[in-house]
Order: sequence, then structure tokens, then C-alpha cells
Amino acid sequence: MGQNIVEKILATHLLKGKIVPGEEIAIRIDQTLTQDATGTMAYLQFEAMEMPRVKTELSVSYVDHNTLQTGFENMDDHRFLQSIAAKYGIYYSRPGNGICHQVHLERFGAPGKTLLGADSHTPTGGAMGMIAIGAGGLDVAVAMAGGPFYLTMPQIIKVHLTGRLSPWVSAKDVILELLRIMTVKGGLGKMIEYGGPGVKSLAVPERATIANMGAELGITTSIFPSDAVTRDFLHAQGRGEIWQELEADENASYDGRLEINLEKIEPLAAKPHMPDHIAKITDIGPIKVDQVLIGSCTNSSYKDLMTVAAILKGKKIHPAVHAGIAPGSKQVLEMLARNGALADLISSGARILECTCGFCIGMGQAPNSGAVSLRTNNRNFLGRSGTCDAQVYLTSPETAAASALTGVLTDPRTLGESISLPMPSRFLLDDSMIIPPSPENQAGNIIRGPNIKPLPLKKEMPGALQGMTLIKTGDNVTTDDIMPAGANILPLRSNIPALSRFVFSRIDDTFALRAKEAGGGVIVGGFNYGQGSSREHAALAHMYLRVCAIIAKSFARIHKANLINFGILPLTFDNPEDYGRIDQDDLIGIPNLRAQLSQTNKLWVHNQTKQTKFLVTHDLSSRQIGIIRAGGLLNYTKIQAEL
Amino acid sequence: MGQNIVEKILATHLLKGKIVPGEEIAIRIDQTLTQDATGTMAYLQFEAMEMPRVKTELSVSYVDHNTLQTGFENMDDHRFLQSIAAKYGIYYSRPGNGICHQVHLERFGAPGKTLLGADSHTPTGGAMGMIAIGAGGLDVAVAMAGGPFYLTMPQIIKVHLTGRLSPWVSAKDVILELLRIMTVKGGLGKMIEYGGPGVKSLAVPERATIANMGAELGITTSIFPSDAVTRDFLHAQGRGEIWQELEADENASYDGRLEINLEKIEPLAAKPHMPDHIAKITDIGPIKVDQVLIGSCTNSSYKDLMTVAAILKGKKIHPAVHAGIAPGSKQVLEMLARNGALADLISSGARILECTCGFCIGMGQAPNSGAVSLRTNNRNFLGRSGTCDAQVYLTSPETAAASALTGVLTDPRTLGESISLPMPSRFLLDDSMIIPPSPENQAGNIIRGPNIKPLPLKKEMPGALQGMTLIKTGDNVTTDDIMPAGANILPLRSNIPALSRFVFSRIDDTFALRAKEAGGGVIVGGFNYGQGSSREHAALAHMYLRVCAIIAKSFARIHKANLINFGILPLTFDNPEDYGRIDQDDLIGIPNLRAQLSQTNKLWVHNQTKQTKFLVTHDLSSRQIGIIRAGGLLNYTKIQAEL
Repeated sequence: MGQNIVEKILATHLLKGKIVPGEEIAIRIDQTLTQDATGTMAYLQFEAMEMPRVKTELSVSYVDHNTLQTGFENMDDHRFLQSIAAKYGIYYSRPGNGICHQVHLERFGAPGKTLLGADSHTPTGGAMGMIAIGAGGLDVAVAMAGGPFYLTMPQIIKVHLTGRLSPWVSAKDVILELLRIMTVKGGLGKMIEYGGPGVKSLAVPERATIANMGAELGITTSIFPSDAVTRDFLHAQGRGEIWQELEADENASYDGRLEINLEKIEPLAAKPHMPDHIAKITDIGPIKVDQVLIGSCTNSSYKDLMTVAAILKGKKIHPAVHAGIAPGSKQVLEMLARNGALADLISSGARILECTCGFCIGMGQAPNSGAVSLRTNNRNFLGRSGTCDAQVYLTSPETAAASALTGVLTDPRTLGESISLPMPSRFLLDDSMIIPPSPENQAGNIIRGPNIKPLPLKKEMPGALQGMTLIKTGDNVTTDDIMPAGANILPLRSNIPALSRFVFSRIDDTFALRAKEAGGGVIVGGFNYGQGSSREHAALAHMYLRVCAIIAKSFARIHKANLINFGILPLTFDNPEDYGRIDQDDLIGIPNLRAQLSQTNKLWVHNQTKQTKFLVTHDLSSRQIGIIRAGGLLNYTKIQAEL
Repeated sequence: MGQNIVEKILATHLLKGKIVPGEEIAIRIDQTLTQDATGTMAYLQFEAMEMPRVKTELSVSYVDHNTLQTGFENMDDHRFLQSIAAKYGIYYSRPGNGICHQVHLERFGAPGKTLLGADSHTPTGGAMGMIAIGAGGLDVAVAMAGGPFYLTMPQIIKVHLTGRLSPWVSAKDVILELLRIMTVKGGLGKMIEYGGPGVKSLAVPERATIANMGAELGITTSIFPSDAVTRDFLHAQGRGEIWQELEADENASYDGRLEINLEKIEPLAAKPHMPDHIAKITDIGPIKVDQVLIGSCTNSSYKDLMTVAAILKGKKIHPAVHAGIAPGSKQVLEMLARNGALADLISSGARILECTCGFCIGMGQAPNSGAVSLRTNNRNFLGRSGTCDAQVYLTSPETAAASALTGVLTDPRTLGESISLPMPSRFLLDDSMIIPPSPENQAGNIIRGPNIKPLPLKKEMPGALQGMTLIKTGDNVTTDDIMPAGANILPLRSNIPALSRFVFSRIDDTFALRAKEAGGGVIVGGFNYGQGSSREHAALAHMYLRVCAIIAKSFARIHKANLINFGILPLTFDNPEDYGRIDQDDLIGIPNLRAQLSQTNKLWVHNQTKQTKFLVTHDLSSRQIGIIRAGGLLNYTKIQAEL
């Protein structure tokens, strides 16, 4: 029996468990990455483990989220991260050097390796044949300390690509098509391995766009073969020597299969307010556009921006449109500056934004009230743009650029003859904004600003669970809903007491106060609870507010793992209809919970307010039960070390 | 008797009064400019005057302050400004097109004209022989409506320049030297006319740096001759036809004279926290630098940034320094992008920031806690950077760039052989980001977001003044102290009720609440009360909080004019020692004030708490008394129209 690509990589990285869907496995992590919004907490956790130096092959700390610097907090974080990196053997990518996933792909990603990143779009690395997974900061901290990464083995779905993309249709449209087919919760418990003859027609940055936005499908990760295209890309990045071929064996088996004919894909958009609200550009029609923003880890590569520059060259942005372009990295920006494309973008009237996540994470560029905003990024959740009533559409760079010129949503196929842009045989190589770790462990001083507060800790789990239902949410609640980002909140990521005041603030701004007054409680959720960003702060702030359990119809993978890591019990309704029989403020209890956890995976929940009972399920492994009982992974790790 | 340049321009613009220092004069305004932080209010005021179209030769609305867009407010303001401009015959310079003063110099400034701008650095225009004055938005609104601009005729001080600047010493050092000599309050009631053989060695952008930062001297404005250098600059901007020669007659007289030998100037810095805390770079020594920021309306010209690019080319920013560069305009940015200099800047590791005011106004790039930040802008008031305990030094671009490379404050003369950069014979001319007004009046719809609140209005002055002393400040209080800017507050500039909550918040965050509870009151200040930015919001928010009078040792010009415009009485201690005999919370009264105002300029103030009396002076013209009595200029204008 032949192996697929995932199995080939896992064969050399599996530490515990069996490669059977649904089984808990532990894998060795070769590389880690963090960004600044998740990184400060991850490194505080790493520090708490008292290791002299990271044990990974490579760990990189990027600064790309919090770069507006509207107060001292951001640059204090940057200084903290730089000093931590110097001390513990971590590469530090300075603010301005680019978006973590774009830079990692250019400078560090390697076929056959495993990458764990404290960012949900870490699967971008799958574009070059690595298993790249997003996780909470604590999981990344454990991996940096040399510990294994535990995950539930997902089903491996083969997406078989045939044909070639038509002119003006791009990789973004491929992943939007997959979102149309699978929806944002269709990928739970799955990962995608791309194959088929269509793969060869896709350049590495195009594969990266597709792998990147797999995160919105809810899948664990995506992976592409490492082939001649990968080899050429790595060679052009001056890293040809790390290339290795990785293809699925001909008789490899999969847990599912989907075929996509690239030729049949048309320009698509994700309509407000969910990445799977997909429609054809031609079906949506020429709606008036107020803002066009091009960039983010999904669409900010050299290839993407050269295409945009070619579209805009010699033309002018429509006077009613505000347009901004954020290149993905210093490499991209400097190449565009050297070859004249940047001047073409500037000449068109586009604003050139910094090489950061920026608008994608709500850090600036909030549109006007009620605006239609066309963006090339990956999430269009309600309010994430910074403007509550804005209508955000996700499109390809081609569609965005075409629309910026006309002022209305425009099918890029109307631009006429297609543009052929060969990939450069050599990228501009200059890693001077990446500060390498010193070869020896440094006794350096960690620089800690006043906003960097100690990690909150939790006590071990009590015998029984008892608490008020603090909030009851609908389906597809995102980690943006749970723990909003944006310009006012993101700077508090190193300060959990201050941050926790904003939990659920966009849905119900009394939540944090009520949770505090009640001394904690439980939360009731719908399907796909906690989708979106990997931010462990969504769990950590719950822990700080003493939320002890979430009862939902189903959970998104990373958030569920984060809840367990912080000692919060994720429970699933045995009968989803019981969701309808519980209300906010109901008093809930699970007597004798601590003892029951390892005896059964079905538990009776008592609704003391309504005088009813209902069954919930947990699917915790014995290791995860240990973590929950200990009050979280940090406590668990200490207890294990003491045993 | 010959004329100086000021007299020559005033001769064709004087509407009322005599050109005698201390006399109130009224002049005709040819051009106006606004930026977005002052502009929304100015245009609301213009709207309230119910004119069909501006009556100036040229009015331009720039967007350069509020461009971070961390919420809907900024882009709502942009939309409002764009729609107002289209309706009333105003040029609209889009966000991204650049900083108002830089763009105005490039594209609109004209020798011999008068320019009134709702920004304190409007005097930048003096670089090309125009009388360019900063004023409150209401004054600008009146000018747009065709009304005269009233000012107290300042003394005209001749600054006679001899010699040439030494290598690596630049125009910024010239104005820093003047700040050393004159201090931030030395220019009250004065204006500067530059002359002498040294002028010819200064390019227009260098003259602009000097004229620009005259604002920090407290002077009304600065003016340079319009000579062959001006002609060449205008020609290179494609506007040679508007050039006219303007030189002082040989026997022109002045009210004072100062001589500066350019050769003797060395690289200087303004130390924290005031632009007149001047020291030589060599005297300050190689202090460690955390942040270097190059840009702002003072130092962001093509010449400045080409110099910086030449210094940084082929070198790398020190790893401990965070460096950012914000070009002054799209013209500058695109030229740097076309000629490779931008690529050199990027390559050095500098972050390329948008063509906006940005860091200068505290909109982003706040340094880390306790940082030393080197900046090329014009103000280093405590906290203006966004970080309360940061140490901001103001230097030339040359000093900033040299220090970015070494990581310590560095004399640029250590850079070796000087760089000779000829001015371009033709700038890149593309005004596509400036939307011209339609030739006919448009019946366009004004787009008003929910943050754009109606103008607050004031009732006419009561018979007597009675109020609590709400706060007592020290000397040199700035409009940044009175009405802070920064990323959280600036977006509220169109919403006075929300904005007024932040009055004095950096000095005493109970002020607004106390003022509200007391139903208004009076403020006691020291010398040079209200220096700095032209923001009329500092007066308008006082009016909203029902502050009825300020008693100070002396006032900065623009703020005093703004107070009068909003019906708030500016009074000066007759004996400055009485300042020491009044405290916060003292109850103050001036009986029969309304009647007394026009009878005498000396008034008895009763301190009812201390049972004492002291004399104060006002120097209001009869027109200004009328404005105060009416409750502000808008009411006054209406009453005059009804008469």
C-alpha cells in the first residue's frame, strides 16, 4: 500500500499514537513561528518552563500584527520579543520585514518538515510540502521546549486538481470555490492533500494562497506536493539545497476525495459576513465599491502584486474608491521598488501601506460607515474591519484591482488580454531585517514594558462543576467574537487582566462584568464554536474570568485545543436539540465531575434553574483529562516533571 | 522710504487698519487650506454661513492627519470632506497624496499671495514669498466666505542670513538655532522676514523647513524673498508662469534685526520636551537611540529624503533602532520609487510609512516606554509621541539618518565627504490625487457619518462673569495639553461632545467632569498660554464646557484668536504676581463685565474665595468686543448680516 504525502512526513515525525483518523497522535515539531499578537504570551509561557534555549531546529518570532503603535504597548512588545529571541536562540523578524507566513515561505519553509505556528494561517507553509499547523501559543511554547505536539489525527482528503486556470482567474478563486463546496465548518477533523495534474500549473505563491485560506474551511492543514515548481521557487530564494521531492505514491489511499477542474472556476467573492458566502462576481453584479485593500498573508506575494501593478499601470484609481496596497514582505516591497512596479502602484493613486497584517486584523484602514470594502484577505467576519456596518467582500487581487479602476465590483476578465508574468529566477535576497540568534545562549536582559503582565494561572479542577450560563451564542461564533482584535484591543495582548474586559464585547458588552460578578460560569454555543484566528487569548481570557466549561454543538479545532490547554472543559450536546432548552442565566451543574471524567465520556448536566437534565459528551484523551484536572497544560507539565 | 516684502504684499491685500505693529488690521485672503483634523469643523462652519461656493481664488482641503483609520470615523470624515469640496468649489487632496504644507508648496503656493490655513504650520508657504498664516478653522471658514482675516499687525523682524551652511549642517539646524536664540515665546507679536546674501544658498525646500518651524517661535509667520531660486523651483514644478520677483527694497525698514552667519551653525537638537531646549549634538553626546523617525511637514521634501537615501544607501539600520520614513507627498514618494532611492531606503531596513503627518501628531509610531526617539518633526511636547515617558529629540534628517546607522546620537559631520544633490530640473507632475472642484456649483449630497455632530453654539455673553477656577496651569501650556491629539482622540474632531471629555486630560483627567459639574468656569494660565497647534478645538471644547474666560500672563496668537472666535474672554494679569494669589477652586467674578468691556481695558476681578481683588487687562478691538458679546464669531457674523 503506497503512502500519501501526509503519511510520508508523519512517518518520520510520529512520536505517539497511530495514523488513524480520530486517534490522538503526538508529533515532533521541527520549526515554530509566532507573531507579535500571540507571541508575547507564547514566550511568557516558554519562559515559565525555565529552559535555557529552544530545542527546535528553527524558531522564528515575527512582528507583523501590532505595528500601528498608537501607544507605548506595541513597541514595548517588540522590544520584549527581540530580547527574548536573543536570549533563547530564536530568529527575530523586525517590524517592517513582513507578514510571518509570507516571510516564512520565502526564507525558512522546507519540504518534509513540520511547522507549528501561533497563528491560524500557519498552513500557508503547506504550499511547499511541509505539515504546517496553527496552534495556541502554549502549544508552540511546548514545541519550542522540545515537547511533542498532540493533535487528533484528521481525515486526509485528496483534492484532485485538473485543468488550468482561465485567464484572470486566480488561486484565490480556487480556495473560494472550495469554501463554496465545503463551507467554513466542512473541514472540521480533516486535512487536505492537493494532487492531480492541475497542481503543476500553480506557482508556489498560488499554492500558498490556497493552503493559507484552508484555515477558513476549518481543516487542520493543507499540503501540496514538493515538485519541480517547488524546487525552482526554493532555488530562486537561494535555498535550492533544502529541496526534496515529495509526491504521493500512485496507490496512496485517502479518507475522502474531491475533484476540482481549474478550467471551470470563475472569479468569485465571499460576500458579507462569512468566508463561505460565495457567489460569482458576475452574479453579484456591479455594486458600488468604496474601498479596495490588497494584501494580507493570503494575497501579498511578489506574483500577486506584480499582477496588480500590471493592471493599474498607466491608469488611475476611481475617485470614489479609497485603495491601499500592503506588500507581504520587505523582499516583495524592495523588488517592486527596484523594478518600477511600486512606482506604477503609487502613480495609480493607491496608498502604499506597511508590510504587515494591517487591515486584515482590523489594525487600520477601517472603511466608512456602511461602506462596501473589497479585500484580498481571508476573513470578512462582521466588524473585523473596524467598522460594524461595513460590507466586506473577499476577492482575488485581480478582481480587487479591476474594481478599484471602475468603482464597482468588476469581473477581471473584462480587463482584456491576460498578463503573463514569469516568476523571477532569483528573488532579491537580503535577510538583514531578520536578526539571527547568537550561537551561544545569551545571558541577555529581557526588556519588559509596564503593559507586559505576568501570566495568570489556574488552580486544579474542583470536584464538581457549578455555574451560571453567562451567554448563549449562535453557530459559527469566531474567536473574533469571543476575543475581539482591532486597534484598541490588540495592544493589550500581553495584559490579560486588561484584555479580559473585552471578552464578547462586540456581542454583549456586559459579559466581562457579569462573569466577574458571578465569579465565573459556563458558556453555551452552537456549531463550529471558536472558528477563525488561533488566538489562545480567547481561552486565556475565559480562564481569567473563571469560565469553567463551554457546552456547544461542535467546536473548531484550535480553539478547542486552547480551551483544554487552559483547563476549560469543552463539552458537546449529545442531542443538539437540548441547546434550545437552556437559556442565559440558567444555573448549571455537573456533580462529581472530576471523578466521572475518566470513567465515561457521557455526563449528565443538571439545569437547576429549569429543573431539567441533559447529556453532554466529551472526547478528551486521557492526557487531555489530565490537563483539565490539573487546571491547564502549564500545571500539567509541571506535575509531569515532578512525577 | 522703501518697502520690505511684507509691506509689499500687504499693500495689495490690506482692507482695514494701518500697518503699524499692535494695530488690528484686516487683510484679503487669496488662498486657504485645511487638513482633515481641523477641516471638518471649518467646513461645518462654512456650511453654517450658507454660501453657495467659496469666494477665494483657491481653497484646498487636504487629508493628512487622520489616516490610520482605526474606526469608521476617519474615513467618514474623508467622505464628508470630499463631498463638501465637490459641492463648494474646493480642491480635495486625497489621503495618500501627502502632507498639506508639502503639497501646497509643490502644487499651489504662489509668490505675492496670502494664504490662510487651519494648521499652525501654514507659514511653510512663506518659503516662496507668500504671506501664509495659521488660524482657527472658523477664521478660515470666514475667509472662504470672502470675509477678511483680522490680525494684530506684528512687528517685522529682519533675519539677515550671511555665509553658507557647512557640509552636513542643514536648514533644520538654522531654525533650531533661531529657537535657541528666541525661545518658543520670543516670537509673540512678531513675524520674520528673511534676507541677506545667505538666502540665495538655500533651496526652496530648505527655506520651507525654516519657515515651517517658525511656528515654534510663536511668530505670526515667516517670509522669504521670491528670487531666482524660487523661479527655478516653480519652473521645475511646471508652474513657472506664476513666479514674480519679490525682494525687500534696499532702504526697507524693520522693527528689529537679527543676523545669522550660516557658516557658524553646527548640528543641533531640541531636547525633551520643548522645541527651544537646544543643544549641539556634540554637547549632548552619543546617547543611545531607540527610534528614528524622518518625515513631517518640516522635513519630508524630495531633497531631504534624497539626502537620507544617500546616507543610508548600502548600509543597514542599527539592530537596536526602529527607523521609519514618511515621505511628504506622493510626488516625493513616486520620484524616490522611480529613481531607486526608495529601494535604497527599504534596503537599509527603514520602514516606509504613509505620506502623512503620522508620528508627528501622535498618529502611530509611539516609541517604547522611556525610549529616546529622534525625530525630524517640529514639536517634542511631553506625551505628544503617544508615550508619556519617551524622550523626543528634534534633529535634522542628516543627524537622524547618521544616528539610525550607529544606534547613538551622531554628528552627521562624521559621515565623511558631503553629498551634493542637485535639485531636479523637473519634478514628477501628476495631480491625479487632487480632485478639482467642478466648474459649476454642484447640488451634491453632503455625506455625513454618525460621528459628525452639529456645531455647538453659544448664547450671547451675560452681564457679569462669575465662575470657579477650574484649573491653574504653568507657563507654555500647549494646545496639545489643552486638547490632546493622538490616535484615540483625533478621530473625535467632528464630535465636540465626545471630544470635550478629553480637555486637559493629560494634565488632570478630572477636568472635563469638574467643568461639567460646575456648569463652566474660568481657567488661570501662565506665560504663552496655548502655544503650538492651531486647533480651534482647544477653544471650541472650552466653549462646550462653558468656560467663559482665561486669565493668563500672556497668550499665544492663534489660540487667543480662537478663544475670541468662540466667545471666551482672554484676560491678562495686569501684575503677573497676582497669578500667585489665585488657586484652583477659587470663585471668581467680574461684575458688570458686559458694560465695562468697551469702556475700559482694565477690569477688576473679585476673588470671592480669598476676598481679594486684582486687575486684568484685555486688548480687544471694538470688533473683538462685539464678537465676545455676541457669544462668538458665528453669532457676530449673523448679527452683522441682519443689521
